[in-house]
Amino acid sequence: MYRQISSTLLERAVDELAKLPGVGERTAMRLALYLLKQDDAFVNSFVTAIADMKRNVKYCKVCHNISDTDVCQICADKSRDASIVCVVENIKDVMSIEATLQYKGLYHVLGGLISPMDGIGPGDIAIDSLVDRVAAGGICEVILALSPTMEGDTTNFFIYRKLAQSGVKVTTLSRGISVGDELEYTDEVTLGRSIVNRVSFETNL
Amino acid sequence: MYRQISSTLLERAVDELAKLPGVGERTAMRLALYLLKQDDAFVNSFVTAIADMKRNVKYCKVCHNISDTDVCQICADKSRDASIVCVVENIKDVMSIEATLQYKGLYHVLGGLISPMDGIGPGDIAIDSLVDRVAAGGICEVILALSPTMEGDTTNFFIYRKLAQSGVKVTTLSRGISVGDELEYTDEVTLGRSIVNRVSFETNL
Repeated sequence: MYRQISSTLLERAVDELAKLPGVGERTAMRLALYLLKQDDAFVNSFVTAIADMKRNVKYCKVCHNISDTDVCQICADKSRDASIVCVVENIKDVMSIEATLQYKGLYHVLGGLISPMDGIGPGDIAIDSLVDRVAAGGICEVILALSPTMEGDTTNFFIYRKLAQSGVKVTTLSRGISVGDELEYTDEVTLGRSIVNRVSFETNL
Repeated sequence: MYRQISSTLLERAVDELAKLPGVGERTAMRLALYLLKQDDAFVNSFVTAIADMKRNVKYCKVCHNISDTDVCQICADKSRDASIVCVVENIKDVMSIEATLQYKGLYHVLGGLISPMDGIGPGDIAIDSLVDRVAAGGICEVILALSPTMEGDTTNFFIYRKLAQSGVKVTTLSRGISVGDELEYTDEVTLGRSIVNRVSFETNL
């Protein structure tokens, strides 16, 4: 219905906003009209923040995490344990793990998962630089924290084999029933694994 | 959870995106990371379209509709009936009525409704310019197409009184059962009015 727009400037802005994921044409129109109603400073700051981010954001030379500097805050933090490296798919996963406040090691952001279906091979993600980091020494443990999907499992296994000769300890996130979940509604695979890999009661206290 | 961001540039972009209506912090993060993943041309065109719209959009001198020129396409269209003016709250309403393809007159965009609760008086919306348009002559009918809310009714009545001496015909949108609605689920006020204001069967064919 909104193709009846009397301004090509508005139309272009709506078209651009509608390219965002999860934003349809009606939402795009609502956002465009909202931005149009705000004062110049608001729109200016909105547009500048996005352009600045795109232009100036860097990726950490060590772990490929997003950063304002050549080496990210996490890698540069001397109080963190540089002997543990947690391998994740993307920077959102870094944020999720950081938010738990339970992890004090470093990260390695792959920037994707091996997915032959999408034409993404081991060379397209940051596996070589992980192997180099481990080969450089100082790392005792590599935690594989990828999603339990087919792509995640494939990538896990590929990395596991790549690191087999290095002598580094390779671990993975524990699987089991989510905290707060009802046993009744847990899928069989998860429930089965959580029985097989049961832990001492004191561990979960 | 997303306050663990290792880049102030990303953080600023997320904050700005989260100011949009209906966009929370998680969605803002998703949008920011999406924009970050696109190439420079994509983000450039996104940002430019919004900045251009804000900077260069004009409002029609005659009807206050959004426009790229001093007088909008609708007011400039000689094939439209300049003797009928449809009064609407905002430019979205113009688009909705245009989308019906049933109306060939002109518009007058008030830019709001009288709302004492929000401190919006008759002087804050474009009523004076409507009265001037009518006084300038050439207009036979003014259609009040405001929402049937308290603010809409107040504004309708105010405009009706302002135009009382001008001799112009003042009409309003017909109320009744929506096309496709079930009688059973129509509210009593609407159903009551649609009985009182029943029309000849041929009219609705």
